[in-house]
Amino acid sequence: MGRKIGVIGMGNVGSTVAHDIIAKGLADDLVLIDINEAKVNADALDFADAMANASFHVNLTVNDYTALKDADVVISAIGNIQMLQDNTNNDRFVELPFTSKQAVNVAVKIKESGFNGVLVVITNPCDVITSIYQALTELPKNQVIGTGTLLDSARMKRAVGTVFKIDPRSVGGYNLGEHGNSQFTAWSTVSVLGKAINELAKEQPVDFVELDEIARAGGFTVLHGKKYTNYGIATAAVRLASIIISDARAELPVSNFRQEYNTYLSYPAIVGKSGIVESLQLDLTKEEEQKLAQSAEYIQSKLEETKTYLQIN
Amino acid sequence: MGRKIGVIGMGNVGSTVAHDIIAKGLADDLVLIDINEAKVNADALDFADAMANASFHVNLTVNDYTALKDADVVISAIGNIQMLQDNTNNDRFVELPFTSKQAVNVAVKIKESGFNGVLVVITNPCDVITSIYQALTELPKNQVIGTGTLLDSARMKRAVGTVFKIDPRSVGGYNLGEHGNSQFTAWSTVSVLGKAINELAKEQPVDFVELDEIARAGGFTVLHGKKYTNYGIATAAVRLASIIISDARAELPVSNFRQEYNTYLSYPAIVGKSGIVESLQLDLTKEEEQKLAQSAEYIQSKLEETKTYLQIN
Amino acid sequence: MGRKIGVIGMGNVGSTVAHDIIAKGLADDLVLIDINEAKVNADALDFADAMANASFHVNLTVNDYTALKDADVVISAIGNIQMLQDNTNNDRFVELPFTSKQAVNVAVKIKESGFNGVLVVITNPCDVITSIYQALTELPKNQVIGTGTLLDSARMKRAVGTVFKIDPRSVGGYNLGEHGNSQFTAWSTVSVLGKAINELAKEQPVDFVELDEIARAGGFTVLHGKKYTNYGIATAAVRLASIIISDARAELPVSNFRQEYNTYLSYPAIVGKSGIVESLQLDLTKEEEQKLAQSAEYIQSKLEETKTYLQIN
Amino acid sequence: MGRKIGVIGMGNVGSTVAHDIIAKGLADDLVLIDINEAKVNADALDFADAMANASFHVNLTVNDYTALKDADVVISAIGNIQMLQDNTNNDRFVELPFTSKQAVNVAVKIKESGFNGVLVVITNPCDVITSIYQALTELPKNQVIGTGTLLDSARMKRAVGTVFKIDPRSVGGYNLGEHGNSQFTAWSTVSVLGKAINELAKEQPVDFVELDEIARAGGFTVLHGKKYTNYGIATAAVRLASIIISDARAELPVSNFRQEYNTYLSYPAIVGKSGIVESLQLDLTKEEEQKLAQSAEYIQSKLEETKTYLQIN
Repeated sequence: MGRKIGVIGMGNVGSTVAHDIIAKGLADDLVLIDINEAKVNADALDFADAMANASFHVNLTVNDYTALKDADVVISAIGNIQMLQDNTNNDRFVELPFTSKQAVNVAVKIKESGFNGVLVVITNPCDVITSIYQALTELPKNQVIGTGTLLDSARMKRAVGTVFKIDPRSVGGYNLGEHGNSQFTAWSTVSVLGKAINELAKEQPVDFVELDEIARAGGFTVLHGKKYTNYGIATAAVRLASIIISDARAELPVSNFRQEYNTYLSYPAIVGKSGIVESLQLDLTKEEEQKLAQSAEYIQSKLEETKTYLQIN
Repeated sequence: MGRKIGVIGMGNVGSTVAHDIIAKGLADDLVLIDINEAKVNADALDFADAMANASFHVNLTVNDYTALKDADVVISAIGNIQMLQDNTNNDRFVELPFTSKQAVNVAVKIKESGFNGVLVVITNPCDVITSIYQALTELPKNQVIGTGTLLDSARMKRAVGTVFKIDPRSVGGYNLGEHGNSQFTAWSTVSVLGKAINELAKEQPVDFVELDEIARAGGFTVLHGKKYTNYGIATAAVRLASIIISDARAELPVSNFRQEYNTYLSYPAIVGKSGIVESLQLDLTKEEEQKLAQSAEYIQSKLEETKTYLQIN
Repeated sequence: MGRKIGVIGMGNVGSTVAHDIIAKGLADDLVLIDINEAKVNADALDFADAMANASFHVNLTVNDYTALKDADVVISAIGNIQMLQDNTNNDRFVELPFTSKQAVNVAVKIKESGFNGVLVVITNPCDVITSIYQALTELPKNQVIGTGTLLDSARMKRAVGTVFKIDPRSVGGYNLGEHGNSQFTAWSTVSVLGKAINELAKEQPVDFVELDEIARAGGFTVLHGKKYTNYGIATAAVRLASIIISDARAELPVSNFRQEYNTYLSYPAIVGKSGIVESLQLDLTKEEEQKLAQSAEYIQSKLEETKTYLQIN
Repeated sequence: MGRKIGVIGMGNVGSTVAHDIIAKGLADDLVLIDINEAKVNADALDFADAMANASFHVNLTVNDYTALKDADVVISAIGNIQMLQDNTNNDRFVELPFTSKQAVNVAVKIKESGFNGVLVVITNPCDVITSIYQALTELPKNQVIGTGTLLDSARMKRAVGTVFKIDPRSVGGYNLGEHGNSQFTAWSTVSVLGKAINELAKEQPVDFVELDEIARAGGFTVLHGKKYTNYGIATAAVRLASIIISDARAELPVSNFRQEYNTYLSYPAIVGKSGIVESLQLDLTKEEEQKLAQSAEYIQSKLEETKTYLQIN
């Protein structure tokens, strides 16, 4: 029946997600939704003005939740960049009062549409919002995924790739935990130049602090330089959507529900048509396990706060 | 030696052009330039954060004009959207005082780089700025092209496609003249459903006024809905760049220098590796010829004003 | 539900169709079917060996007709190249005794699968086989399409493009009628360099005989040089499939049922998700109308022969 | 200057390589060369017949070695499939008498062309032929690469992916040594589901013999089912070419010259614009080191035989 993707939220991220999908010809039907009707109509027409010069044809539907019923993937990209820009300590949780309420509204409408595909959540704070979406859409947990540290892992790979002068796609490994300040690179999982980076570090100096710094500084450069980020996150989300639709069963570090932590957090999993099809079990170091547990606790506490705030269970 | 493209101006349009190129894997080397260093560095890092999840590898260079020396194509996307937003009569010439001065600076630097590929000009007012670029870079006229009415033609095709319920790529024909308020659809060139639209209009009602209105209203919807346009124009520019790099010798309505009007204006031409490789000669109606002449006069007069303002010949 | 395509017949054409689909990432699920189990399994494994180095993931199913039930498009590429090679007068009808019987078997199995998408027929003689498929699958006529002169039109565009030194995609126009020896270029529909070629011929010499010759000679060069053709026809079929799946409503010259001729023959139509969504009505010259009528008669007579031979109505 | 690729040898593999490049729009200029003029002209025309329905424009040049002068990559796909088919013990060395002589001729012509890009060698026996090409073209060793076990590694990943039900691209690790019967999977390098497969094997049964068998049996299924292989190897070679042209500096197991073995053999390396830009140094097990040394010795002895046969140093 062709590929159908919904994108909810036509801000910097959502419209870039839509553009990426159209440029790559990834969807046959694209449903664009935003509470700002003027903006979503503007983007839809701008895309329509691109079609005569495009390689692929994509059908656009605007602000029609019922069209999500038979979508393969719905991507939540709602956010409030103003709140993030006004914030001085770079914490994605400043968006929570806005995004959590929006997510509640959107979740109800997604549920009403009868959507039974995979819901991909970019909206920050990612792990908490993913949890709320799952609870309110009542979709099975495996069918709701947060992009989580797929972006943070890409930043780590960019940093490692820069230092070792190699393609970031030739760097293995994961960032784990919250898509936020408590996330961390699990260096025990990182491999480069055919070796575990921890082994490599025994042969040649590897400055892990510098690597963390390069990854982090990049984030600041983007945020301060243009007041938002869109290309890195959009590319991550679209790759995830592509893997879902093609049932690729590929391994990705994304926010998925982990029973042992009783919360959504980022941890590598196998992703396919029904979302999370298998959870991995890494051999982390004790220190990494602790960091992950702390990150999980932080997400849980924030989720509880949010539920109280939203008056939901 | 691989494909190398430069994009000058990292505003809404330039960064979308860069994203489109990266998403499609169209270039091996991409040179990004902007006077706002924080913005161009932010976009470059954001793109770098996308690479680990991307299908294609693209090497990025930032703010280095010397890197343009061996570029295949350089795209000028500089603009001042604030000026356009503040303007109340939707005239691209409000940007002229800003963009013409910028174009002078940029043209000098392009020339100094030794660039000898094809310069694609998006910057508005497109025809005048294309002319200035050609004069100051001293590149042969065929190597400097404005995107011109490639976008307006796409809007016409979108309108016709909407009314006839067909793919805009299955609509033939051109908008001609200035990429601005004096441009017009040359209906004598438009074909749809296997016929000249003028012939079709003898068999069934075709509301040309409505078609013009749908095309124009779309532009307003985009501009008022999001305060800028980027996807339509970026897709047009990237298609043009792709045709140049692959030496496709494809027919496109773009701004090219027409001897009989002694100015740059949009008129279909064959585009290949050296830019404009052949100029077409349409059989327009008398009325269309007049409109085109008027449009040409308007561009010429604006170019003269601009040259006086810039104190160049 | 993703994109699902079936390809029946893993000869030179069918396997190239499958490769093209995989290389372009056009399908999520690809069902490969052939009576030669060793061959189809070999191709499937060869494709599977490509997956680790591919950009897109595609799921392969082999020789399972039931998997066609929810396919978007099924492509019939069965043929008997040996019969065509052994033939000395280059007539696609030499394949008829083999392909018509095979088509009967395949059609029954397609019908049994519950397939209700669009059936694209490459199998020669194309128009007759398309008709047989439609009759036996009992799919609505609009849901069964032959690739027909989409290939012949591409050859005409290649010839015109070669002579005028332009991209074949910048040539407009159609070849009509039988995908076989009675087909012809409807020169009244061909446009190039912004003009009807017939108009252009008044200004400069256009050697239509030479153009026909270049188009035809190409066919012979391919057939005699490698004993089969695959890339041109596969690319045409995959483009057609892509247009169907994305519901592009694009105009293409393909074999579709024309009431006035009471037969399948190639004539431009608008193609979308349900197959033929609108039939065009060209303004052909009297001579072209006659040629088309003759081509239609030829197809009809062959179809009658074939039905008698197959003992079907 | 755009992307230029040469493909030498238009058999099953070479023509599929060319098709893959065209389908993906990877090159702007494609030079096709074969001693069988009828075949290479047939393929070129068949590709030209595809252009009107293609997404990308590619310029084709036939049998002109001088056109290789400024190519980014030249791919040697010459072979003699008949010899391989007639052979009963599945040894790629049966092709050596034919391919080694051909390689000598081709190498001389490549050298004469002034080509200074990267030469990618598919031709079997791959490691020996790569060595001969390097010696006779006198290109630096880093600029001559054999596809080697990039294909064998893909087969290993296909087998592991099949058993663990995951995307082969989510399997890490390498096959090493000769692209031939002495190659082997270095299981110490293989990772799956976030763990070294050797670690995983401590937790759950992993049947390495079965995995080897699945990988190997696949090869036989392909070869016996269709008498040649093309899709897996072509996809590998085109990926390698793409990485070279975009200077991706990606890690790949390919045949490269290893000083410590004084021969070409497959071992992971970082690949970029100048070919091999860095050699990896794996921590193999003693047993794997021994297998690799044996494989190297085998290649060396065959190379010596071949040099004697060809009367070259």
